[in-house]
Amino acid sequence: MLRNFIEQYTKVPDDEWLFINAAFERKLFAKNEIILEEGSICRYFYFLQTGLIRCYTFYNGTDITKYFTAAPYCFTSIESFRKQEPAEESIQTLEESVIWFANTKELEQLKILNSWNEFTTKLLQEVQQFTRNSLLEIKTKTADQRYKELLINKPEVLQRIPLKYLSGYLGVAPQSLSRIRKNLTKK
Amino acid sequence: MLRNFIEQYTKVPDDEWLFINAAFERKLFAKNEIILEEGSICRYFYFLQTGLIRCYTFYNGTDITKYFTAAPYCFTSIESFRKQEPAEESIQTLEESVIWFANTKELEQLKILNSWNEFTTKLLQEVQQFTRNSLLEIKTKTADQRYKELLINKPEVLQRIPLKYLSGYLGVAPQSLSRIRKNLTKK
Repeated sequence: MLRNFIEQYTKVPDDEWLFINAAFERKLFAKNEIILEEGSICRYFYFLQTGLIRCYTFYNGTDITKYFTAAPYCFTSIESFRKQEPAEESIQTLEESVIWFANTKELEQLKILNSWNEFTTKLLQEVQQFTRNSLLEIKTKTADQRYKELLINKPEVLQRIPLKYLSGYLGVAPQSLSRIRKNLTKK
Repeated sequence: MLRNFIEQYTKVPDDEWLFINAAFERKLFAKNEIILEEGSICRYFYFLQTGLIRCYTFYNGTDITKYFTAAPYCFTSIESFRKQEPAEESIQTLEESVIWFANTKELEQLKILNSWNEFTTKLLQEVQQFTRNSLLEIKTKTADQRYKELLINKPEVLQRIPLKYLSGYLGVAPQSLSRIRKNLTKK
């Protein structure tokens, strides 16, 4: 659960864990349930205990996946959450998911905890590094290569993602993804 | 100069400015001078007062531009600077440039200043938002569209960037960029 996840980044003393634990609520989300809708304000920071979510937007009528997050990991709509402005993206579950969430007010109170501050700083840096790497990868590698690397590095997560979302994530037409997959099967 | 730049983000009291100013050195870099070489550790945070720089890496022998920065703006090799590990990218000037720089030790001392902390937090958020937007744009728009948008939004900067670097930045072959430019000229 959340404590084990945070402890991958920093030690959490028992007394600090009591505060963190109290700040979060837990909820079971159904498959394909909308967690955040584009245009509404994201008021929560989420921990995905089990399941899979995707963050997406529409561009010229095409559904584009910004990222997938598989449990256990944290997520939120960063800009919207930070500025408390309408989100330019939606978030939905792709599987039944157990999700923890804490609102801005509760999180504000956690800022007195060293463990929480160290965790959120390191997590944010990790997410930012991931975004920078994704940008470099999309500039340097073809969709074929990126699909193959997902297949090698995240085979278990890849199987759980519907193909229609994967093509938008890779930045190729669904037909191109079918071709890439066929070519790989032939080999 | 730097004070005006910081004041776009937050007010800088005179006494805090004295500290910030004292932390930085200034140097005139020649055109095409290497500021940071891939594999070395980035020990500085830079403010580009005049000029233009690019950050790049090699992938399978191809020179890929990660980003261009036109003055006035700040830059550093974020991962390398943060972890004091060898950089996975190089930084060079594309024009004669006046650059301010402060090392990790000097910057550590600026952390007692409210104005400096507010400035660096906001700047980092701005850079991160820019990276996320770039990733979304490269997924949703063709190189043609992205080139046209640069032409409309940053015509003055675009003219200063050699074509050989622009194609790697857009993620297209140099021949494709020539074709894009020819098609635009025809219209």
